[in-house]
Amino acid sequence: MQLLRTISARCVGAGVFALAALNSSALAQELSVEERLAALEGQGSAYVDNSYLFLIGGLIVMLMAAGFLCLEAGLVRSKNAAMQSMKNVALFSVAGLMFWLVGYNMAYPSSTMFSGLLGTTPGPWNGGDVSAAGEAGYAPASDWFFQMVFVATAASIVSGTVAERVKLWPFLIFTAILTAFIYPIVASWEWGGGYLDTVHGFSDFAGSTLVHSTGGWAALVGAIIIGPRAGKYFGKQVNPMPGSNIPLAALGTFILWFGWFGFNGASQLAAGTISDINAVAVIFANTNMAAVGGVLGAMFLTAILYKGKVDATMVFNGAIGGLVSITAEPLMPSMGLSVVIGAIGGVLVVLTVPLLDKLKIDDVVGAIPAHLVCGIWGTMIVPLSNTDASFVGQFVGVALTGIFVCIASAIVWTLLKVTLGVRVSDEDQMIGLDKAEVGLEAYPEFSTASR
Amino acid sequence: MQLLRTISARCVGAGVFALAALNSSALAQELSVEERLAALEGQGSAYVDNSYLFLIGGLIVMLMAAGFLCLEAGLVRSKNAAMQSMKNVALFSVAGLMFWLVGYNMAYPSSTMFSGLLGTTPGPWNGGDVSAAGEAGYAPASDWFFQMVFVATAASIVSGTVAERVKLWPFLIFTAILTAFIYPIVASWEWGGGYLDTVHGFSDFAGSTLVHSTGGWAALVGAIIIGPRAGKYFGKQVNPMPGSNIPLAALGTFILWFGWFGFNGASQLAAGTISDINAVAVIFANTNMAAVGGVLGAMFLTAILYKGKVDATMVFNGAIGGLVSITAEPLMPSMGLSVVIGAIGGVLVVLTVPLLDKLKIDDVVGAIPAHLVCGIWGTMIVPLSNTDASFVGQFVGVALTGIFVCIASAIVWTLLKVTLGVRVSDEDQMIGLDKAEVGLEAYPEFSTASR
Amino acid sequence: MQLLRTISARCVGAGVFALAALNSSALAQELSVEERLAALEGQGSAYVDNSYLFLIGGLIVMLMAAGFLCLEAGLVRSKNAAMQSMKNVALFSVAGLMFWLVGYNMAYPSSTMFSGLLGTTPGPWNGGDVSAAGEAGYAPASDWFFQMVFVATAASIVSGTVAERVKLWPFLIFTAILTAFIYPIVASWEWGGGYLDTVHGFSDFAGSTLVHSTGGWAALVGAIIIGPRAGKYFGKQVNPMPGSNIPLAALGTFILWFGWFGFNGASQLAAGTISDINAVAVIFANTNMAAVGGVLGAMFLTAILYKGKVDATMVFNGAIGGLVSITAEPLMPSMGLSVVIGAIGGVLVVLTVPLLDKLKIDDVVGAIPAHLVCGIWGTMIVPLSNTDASFVGQFVGVALTGIFVCIASAIVWTLLKVTLGVRVSDEDQMIGLDKAEVGLEAYPEFSTASR
Repeated sequence: MQLLRTISARCVGAGVFALAALNSSALAQELSVEERLAALEGQGSAYVDNSYLFLIGGLIVMLMAAGFLCLEAGLVRSKNAAMQSMKNVALFSVAGLMFWLVGYNMAYPSSTMFSGLLGTTPGPWNGGDVSAAGEAGYAPASDWFFQMVFVATAASIVSGTVAERVKLWPFLIFTAILTAFIYPIVASWEWGGGYLDTVHGFSDFAGSTLVHSTGGWAALVGAIIIGPRAGKYFGKQVNPMPGSNIPLAALGTFILWFGWFGFNGASQLAAGTISDINAVAVIFANTNMAAVGGVLGAMFLTAILYKGKVDATMVFNGAIGGLVSITAEPLMPSMGLSVVIGAIGGVLVVLTVPLLDKLKIDDVVGAIPAHLVCGIWGTMIVPLSNTDASFVGQFVGVALTGIFVCIASAIVWTLLKVTLGVRVSDEDQMIGLDKAEVGLEAYPEFSTASR
Repeated sequence: MQLLRTISARCVGAGVFALAALNSSALAQELSVEERLAALEGQGSAYVDNSYLFLIGGLIVMLMAAGFLCLEAGLVRSKNAAMQSMKNVALFSVAGLMFWLVGYNMAYPSSTMFSGLLGTTPGPWNGGDVSAAGEAGYAPASDWFFQMVFVATAASIVSGTVAERVKLWPFLIFTAILTAFIYPIVASWEWGGGYLDTVHGFSDFAGSTLVHSTGGWAALVGAIIIGPRAGKYFGKQVNPMPGSNIPLAALGTFILWFGWFGFNGASQLAAGTISDINAVAVIFANTNMAAVGGVLGAMFLTAILYKGKVDATMVFNGAIGGLVSITAEPLMPSMGLSVVIGAIGGVLVVLTVPLLDKLKIDDVVGAIPAHLVCGIWGTMIVPLSNTDASFVGQFVGVALTGIFVCIASAIVWTLLKVTLGVRVSDEDQMIGLDKAEVGLEAYPEFSTASR
Repeated sequence: MQLLRTISARCVGAGVFALAALNSSALAQELSVEERLAALEGQGSAYVDNSYLFLIGGLIVMLMAAGFLCLEAGLVRSKNAAMQSMKNVALFSVAGLMFWLVGYNMAYPSSTMFSGLLGTTPGPWNGGDVSAAGEAGYAPASDWFFQMVFVATAASIVSGTVAERVKLWPFLIFTAILTAFIYPIVASWEWGGGYLDTVHGFSDFAGSTLVHSTGGWAALVGAIIIGPRAGKYFGKQVNPMPGSNIPLAALGTFILWFGWFGFNGASQLAAGTISDINAVAVIFANTNMAAVGGVLGAMFLTAILYKGKVDATMVFNGAIGGLVSITAEPLMPSMGLSVVIGAIGGVLVVLTVPLLDKLKIDDVVGAIPAHLVCGIWGTMIVPLSNTDASFVGQFVGVALTGIFVCIASAIVWTLLKVTLGVRVSDEDQMIGLDKAEVGLEAYPEFSTASR
C-alpha cells in the first residue's frame, strides 16, 4: 500500500541506495563500482534469506499448535473436546507470554554460572539489538519468534497426555512454569552454549531431547501425579475410551508433519548461502522419509499384532514418532537411514502404548511413546551418522534432561496438587469437562453417548 | 522440470548472465568487474525478496478464508453448517472476481478527484506494467494477489454476523458490491494515496479500520436490516443457540492467527533490505503478543464474570480481537505494549457481546465485537506508539469510514430487501438453510437435535 | 541455535567470507573489489531464491495431502471415515518411499531408450550431486522434495474415487506401483525430456495431464474393476450416499486451493531473477482466477439445474475443476481468460458427475470429473494462449497418457483382484470399513444412521 512512497522512504532511512537505481541499468552505469558494491551489500541478501528462514519456519511451526489441537481434540471423548480445544489455544498464549517475560533470556543467556547449568540474565526479552544484528546475520525478532513456537510445542505435548481430567487453571500454571523456566533451562544447556554443549559435546539438532523428551517427561510425571481418568483401569482391566473424531486427529497429524519441516529445516539457522540452503533441503527430504518410516513401521506392526486390522491412531502416532526420531539429527543420515530411524520410532510407539497401560499410566493421546520414547531413541542414534557426537555424551544429555525435568515437574505438579488440586472430580469427569469447566459443549447436537 | 534447459532459456530471455556463471568461480574470473556487477544487479535480489513477501504473505492470508470457514461453520447450528461452508467458498470467489474487475483500480487509482475521495481509473486490472516494475521493486501480480486476499477478509467478516438467516444470492450480491466498490473506496482514501492519507495523516498499517471495521460496519448494518434469527429474542429473553462444532471453531481461530502474520507482516510491503526484514520480524513478534493478550484478557474476564468457567467462544474471539487491535500499528509498539493493546481488545470483546444481545442485534459468531469494536480501538491507540499519527486524524478516519460504509451498506441491503428479499423465512430457518437453500445436510448422520 | 558460532563455522566451511563482513561497512572497505564481488556471488542469492521456491512450494503442496484427507473423509459416510483418513496418511507415506526408491530416477533419467519412452537409470535417488548443483541453480534435495509431493497428489486422486469399498492393502500396493512406475514413466515423457517433449512439443506446465489425468485414469479404471459400492445402483436407480461431514470437505477444498499456488507457482522452477518471480506472481493470480471461475461456473449451473438450490459438493469440485483446468498453462493466459478456462472446468464437473452415475461408475468424491475431465480440457486449451503448443501435440500427449495409464492400471488392478481381492465384501461394507478394516470408528459417539 502506497508502495512507491513507502519503499523510497525506507531506503533513504536505511542509508542504502534506492532500489530503483539497482534495477535500472541506465542509472546503474552512472554509479561507481564502489557505490554499486555498497548497494548490493547493503541489501543484505543473506541476512534477508536467513531471517526468512526463521520467519517462514516459525510460521509453520506455529501451525503445529493447530495440529496438536486437532490431534488432541480428535482423540478425547466428545464431552471433553471443547475443553481440550480451548486449553490448546490458552497454552499457546501462556507459552508466548512466559517465553517473552522470562524464558528467552533463560535459554539464551549472555553469561552462565555453575559450569553452564544456569544463565544469569533473567527478565523480558527486549527486542534484541538490531544495530548489532548484522554480525549475527539475521533479524533478532525472527529468531525470537522461531524459538517461541518451539516452547509452545513442549507445552502442547503435556496437554495431550493429561487430557480429560486435568483442571484448567492448574494446567495453565504448570504451562507457565514449564515455558518460563523448565524448558528454557534445558535448552540453555545446549543451544544457549551451556553445560551439555561445552562439557559433553551433546548433539541435538532440532530438539528430540530438548523439546520433545522435555515435554514427554513433564507429561509422564503429570500423568502419574494426576492419576488416570475415572474408570480407565479396573484391576488389570483396561477400559478403552476411543477418540471421538478420528478424521480431525488425522488432519492434526498431517498439520504436525507439515510443521515439522519448519521445526527441523529452520533449525539449520541459516539459508543465505549455497551450503546452508542445500542443508535445509536435505533436512526436508530426511524429515519426510522418517515420517514415512514411522507410518509404515507402525502400520505393519499393528497389522501383524492385530490380525490384519490397522489401528488408525497408532498410524498417526507412528508418523509423529518417526518425526521425533529424526529431529535430533535430520541432516547427516542418508535418506535410507532416515527411513530406518523413523520406522524404529514407529515400532517403539506401537510397543510402548500397551506398556503404559500395563503400568496404569494414562496417556490419552499417546504423547509419551511418540515424544519421550522416540525422543530418547532419536537422540541416542545420532552418533551413527554424526561423528561429532558420542554415545556417552548423548546419554548424559538424555539422562540429565530426564532427571531435571522429572524432579522439577514433580515439584510443580505436587505443589499444585496440594494447593489448588489438579484433578477434576470423578463426578465432573462423568459429566465431561466441557460442561464442568468450560460451560458449553463441543458438539451439543451430535453426541448421544455422553447423555 | 527440465530444469537446466528452462533456466538457461529464461536467463537468455531476460538478458542476464546465466546463473551457472555466477556460481562457478572459474567462469566468474573470466568476466569483468562490470559484467559481474551487472549480473548481480540483474538478479534483482531485493526485487525477489519483496515479491516473495507479497506472495508468501498473500498465501497465508488466503488461508484465512479457510479459518473463517472453520470458525463460522463451527459456530452455527448443524442445520446451517453446509450453507455457511459453501457461502464462504462462494464469497471468496466473488471477492476475487470483483476485485479484479473493478476493485483494484478503485483502491489504487492512477489519479483521484473530490480531494482524493474517489479514484478515476475504473475497470479491470490489466496485470500491471512489468517493465516498470523495477522502479516499484516488486512483481505487480504479487501485489495484486496480496491486496485481493485482503478484500476477501472484509467479506468474510460480514458472512459470520448474518449467518443462519441470510439468503444465499442476495448475500453474494452484497459481497460483490462490498468488494468492488465499498471496500476499495475506503482503501483508496489511505492506501491509494487519497483523502485520509494526504489531508489527515491517518495511519492504519494493515487495516484495523480499512479492512476490519469496514467489514464490521457492513456486518452491523446487515444484522439490523436482516433482523435476528427466528426465535433468538423473546421480549427481554435471549435464546442461546450454541455452535455445533467447537473444535472446528478452535481450528479456525488458530488458522486465522497463522494467517495474521501474513496480514500484518507483509503489510510492511518490502523485505529486500536489512531494515525491512527487521521490521517484518518485529511485526511477527508483536502480532503474536497481541493475540496472546487477547486470549488472556478474554479468559480472565470470563472466568471472573462466569464464576470460574471459561467460555471457549469468548477465548477464540479474544484472540481475534487482540489481533485486530494490533493491526493498525504492529510495528512501533514494544512487545509489552502489544500485549496490553491485545488484552484490552480481548476485554472489549467480552463486554460487547452481551451488549449486542441487549440491543437485539444478532451477531452469530461475534464478528462485530472482534472486528468492528477492536478495529476502532486499535486505530485510536496508534498515536501512543507512532508519533506520526494524531488522535484527531485517527478519529476522522474511523468516523469517515463508519459513516460511508454504514450509508452505502444500508442502501445496498435495503435495495436487496425490497427486491429479492434478504431473509430466509422462519419456516425455512426452522428446517435449516442446508435443506432450504443448499439441498444437502452438513452432517446427515449425526445431528439429532435438529430433527 | 548457538547462532553466531554455528554460522561462522558454516561460512568458513563453505569457503565464503563471513557474513559479518558483508554487513559491516567498516570491514567491507578493507576488502578488495575482487573479494567483495566473490563474497556477493558466493552467497548464491539466485540459488537460494530458486531453492526457496521448491521448498516453500513443496511445503504447501504437501499440505494438499491434508486437503485431500479432509475432502475425502468429509464426502464418505461416517462408517468409512476413519479408514479414509488413515488410507490418506498411508498413501502419502507409500508414495514418498516409492518415489525415493524408484520413481524419481524413472521420471528424471540420465538417459532414455525407445525414443524417450523409458529412462535407463532405475534405483534409489542418491541425494543428488551437490557439487554440481551450482550449474542447475538450486539445491538438489529441494527439487526432489517438490517432485515427491506431486506424485502423492496423483495417488490421492485415486483414493477418493475408490473409497468406501476398496481393501486397504491392495490399494496400497496399487499406490506403490503407481508412484514407482506408472506416474514416473508418464512424467519422464515430458518433464524428463522424453518422447512427448522432444518429438511432439507437448506442453503441460504443472501437470493437468501428467499428474491430474494420470490420477484420474487410474481412478477410472479402478472404479470399473472394483465395481460400485454395495447398494449404490439398483437397475436405473441411483441411491444417493451423502457425505457425512460437509464442513470438513469445504475445509479440504480451501486447503487444496491454498496448495495449488505451490503446485502451479513453483512449477516455474526458478525465482531468482526478476523475470522468474514476475512469472510466479502471474501464475498465482491466474491460478486464483481459474478457481474463482470454477466455483462460479459450477454454482450458476447447479442453481439453474436444481431450481435455485446450490449443491455444495458441486461447488467444491468446481473449485478443484477450475484449478486443474489452469494447471497445464497458468502463465500465459490473461486473468480474464483464466476465469473462462476455470468456469468451463466447473461446468464440465457439473455435467460429468451425473454421466458417471448413468454409466454406473461409482466415483465417491467426484475425482474423475474434476481431475480427469478438467485435466484433459486444460491440456487441450493450452495452444489458445501458448503459441509454442499445438492442438495435435496436446492431443497426442493426452491420448498417450490415457492409453498407457489405462492399460497399466488395468493390469495392476486385475492382478490384485485375482490374487488378494480388491473389494471389501458387501457385508463388511454394510458394517463399514472402519470396523471391518481399521478396528475403530471415526465418530464412535455421533453416528446414529449407521447403527
